[in-house]
Amino acid sequence: VTAAPGPGFRARVAESFAAQPFMALLGARLLRVEAGRCAVEVPFRPDLTQQHGFLHAGVLATIADNACGYAALSLMPREAGVLTAEFKLNLVRPARGIAAVARAEVVKPGRTLLVARADVLVRAEDGTEELCAVMLATMMCVQGRPDVPAR
Amino acid sequence: VTAAPGPGFRARVAESFAAQPFMALLGARLLRVEAGRCAVEVPFRPDLTQQHGFLHAGVLATIADNACGYAALSLMPREAGVLTAEFKLNLVRPARGIAAVARAEVVKPGRTLLVARADVLVRAEDGTEELCAVMLATMMCVQGRPDVPAR
Amino acid sequence: VTAAPGPGFRARVAESFAAQPFMALLGARLLRVEAGRCAVEVPFRPDLTQQHGFLHAGVLATIADNACGYAALSLMPREAGVLTAEFKLNLVRPARGIAAVARAEVVKPGRTLLVARADVLVRAEDGTEELCAVMLATMMCVQGRPDVPAR
Amino acid sequence: VTAAPGPGFRARVAESFAAQPFMALLGARLLRVEAGRCAVEVPFRPDLTQQHGFLHAGVLATIADNACGYAALSLMPREAGVLTAEFKLNLVRPARGIAAVARAEVVKPGRTLLVARADVLVRAEDGTEELCAVMLATMMCVQGRPDVPAR
Repeated sequence: VTAAPGPGFRARVAESFAAQPFMALLGARLLRVEAGRCAVEVPFRPDLTQQHGFLHAGVLATIADNACGYAALSLMPREAGVLTAEFKLNLVRPARGIAAVARAEVVKPGRTLLVARADVLVRAEDGTEELCAVMLATMMCVQGRPDVPAR
Repeated sequence: VTAAPGPGFRARVAESFAAQPFMALLGARLLRVEAGRCAVEVPFRPDLTQQHGFLHAGVLATIADNACGYAALSLMPREAGVLTAEFKLNLVRPARGIAAVARAEVVKPGRTLLVARADVLVRAEDGTEELCAVMLATMMCVQGRPDVPAR
Repeated sequence: VTAAPGPGFRARVAESFAAQPFMALLGARLLRVEAGRCAVEVPFRPDLTQQHGFLHAGVLATIADNACGYAALSLMPREAGVLTAEFKLNLVRPARGIAAVARAEVVKPGRTLLVARADVLVRAEDGTEELCAVMLATMMCVQGRPDVPAR
Repeated sequence: VTAAPGPGFRARVAESFAAQPFMALLGARLLRVEAGRCAVEVPFRPDLTQQHGFLHAGVLATIADNACGYAALSLMPREAGVLTAEFKLNLVRPARGIAAVARAEVVKPGRTLLVARADVLVRAEDGTEELCAVMLATMMCVQGRPDVPAR
C-alpha cells in the first residue's frame, strides 16, 4: 500500500467504530489501526453461535467487514466516509475457541474504490490461532454527508 | 430447481433455526420454507445498526446466509447437515425501515455443493419494499455428525 | 430496474463490443441489448476447452462479464464508459454442448456503481439449455477518457 | 499450508496444463509449481485485449483460475482431479504491459474443498510489476473419472 494515511486516521476510525451500536451488541472491539491495516476482535459468546455451537458466519462477516472498512478509511481524506460496496467470505474451519480476530489490509487504494482483504483467526485458550475465514472486499469512499450515500 | 425436497424438510429447518442462539440475539425469525426456497426476517432495531443508523452489513449477511442455507437444507437428505462454504454480498442501498427480509432460492442443487442466491429487501412503514443487498452463496451438504464437519 | 436507458444505448454497446479483439478471438457475439439487459454468446469450439473437454471457466467468465458490463452500460449517460470493478462466478455444471449464452440484467443501477447478475446457459444440439454458471458483478461508471480510468 | 503435496504433483500439474487447449489459444504457460503454490503467465497480445487496449478481465480470470486450481491440485491425492467451484476477481488496475502473471497459493486445504487466492501482476517492459487483479477461489477435489464430475 503506497497511499498516505489520511490525517488523524486513528482517531477517526476509533470514533466511527464507537458509533456502531451493532459492534457493542457483539462485544466487538477495535484492536489496532495502522495506515491501510486494521484488526477487530469479537469474544466467543454462546449467544453469537449457530446451531452447532460455532461462531455464526454472520459474526465473522461482521468483524471482517469492519476490519476491511476501517483499513480503507485510514487511507481516505479527512472529509470522506466509507461504505461497503461488496464482500466475499470463505469459511474454512468451524470457529470455536475464546475469540475471533479479523486482520485486514488494503490491497489496492483508489480514489473511489479500495480493495481490502482480511484473514479471520480463531484463538484457542492456549493462545494458538487458526484461520477460520477469509474475506475479499470492495470499499467505497464517499464524500459529503455520509448519511446520504450517493452510491 | 428440480431436486425433490428432503422428507420433513419444514420441521428440520424450523428445528435448526430455533437452535441458533445468534438468530435469537438479532430477533430474526423464519418466515417461510418451501422446497429450495426460504425467507428470513430481522426487525430494524437501533442496536443492529452501524455508524450512520442503517442496518449493519453483517446483519444483512446473517439473514441472507441463513435464508440461503435453509433453502439448501430443504433439498438435502434427512441425515444431512448444511455448512456455508462461502458467500458474496453486494450492498446496493442503505437499509433503513422497519424490517429487512432475505428471500433465497437454490439456483442449482448438487450432491455436495448447492448454489443459492438471495435478495434482501428493506420494508418501510408503509409496507413498500426496496432491494438493499444481493447474495450469491455456495452451501455444502455434510453427512454424519454435523458438529464435526469434514470440510 | 427503474433507471432510464442512456441515449443511443444499442449503438454504443454494439460499437464497444465490436472494439474488443478478445471477443473476436473467442468468436463471441452480442445477441441482444435492452435497457439494463444484455446477452452474449460463444460457440463451443475445441480450442476454448479445458482438460476435460468442457468450455473453460475463463470463457464463461468472459461472456458473463461482458453481458453484465453492457447491461450496465445501456443505463449510463452517453459520455460514460464501463469498467468491471469485480465479479464472482459460480460454476454449477460442466459446459458441453454447441454454445454457451450469458444473459445478464442490472439488479441495481447507481451513479457510480451498478450491480448486475448473469446466468450462463449451455445449449445442446436439440436446443435445450441448462444452467452452467452464475455471476454476480459490480460495474463502475467512468466519466471522461475511458482509456485513463480513475478507479 | 500444512497439507503434504500429492505424489508426483509437478508432473501431474504440467500434464493437466498441457491438456488445456484454451491455454494454448491464449499463449499461457505454466511458470512454477510448488506444494500449494502455482504461477501462470500470459503474454500481452493485442488479440487478448478489450475495447480500451487492456488485457481482458476474462484473460486475467483465466490465468488466476488456473493458478488457483493447480495450486490446489498439487496438494491432492494422485487419483484426484480438480474442479473450480467458484471464484471472485477484483480488478484493481488496467492491465497493460508485456505480460500478466497470476501467482496463487492455497489458503486452506481440505478433503473436499480447497480455498486459494491469487495476485495477478502486470509486468512492464522494464521488468517492474504492478498488481492488476486479486482472486479468491474455491476449488473442489473430485475422485474417480474427472470427466464425469459429481459436483
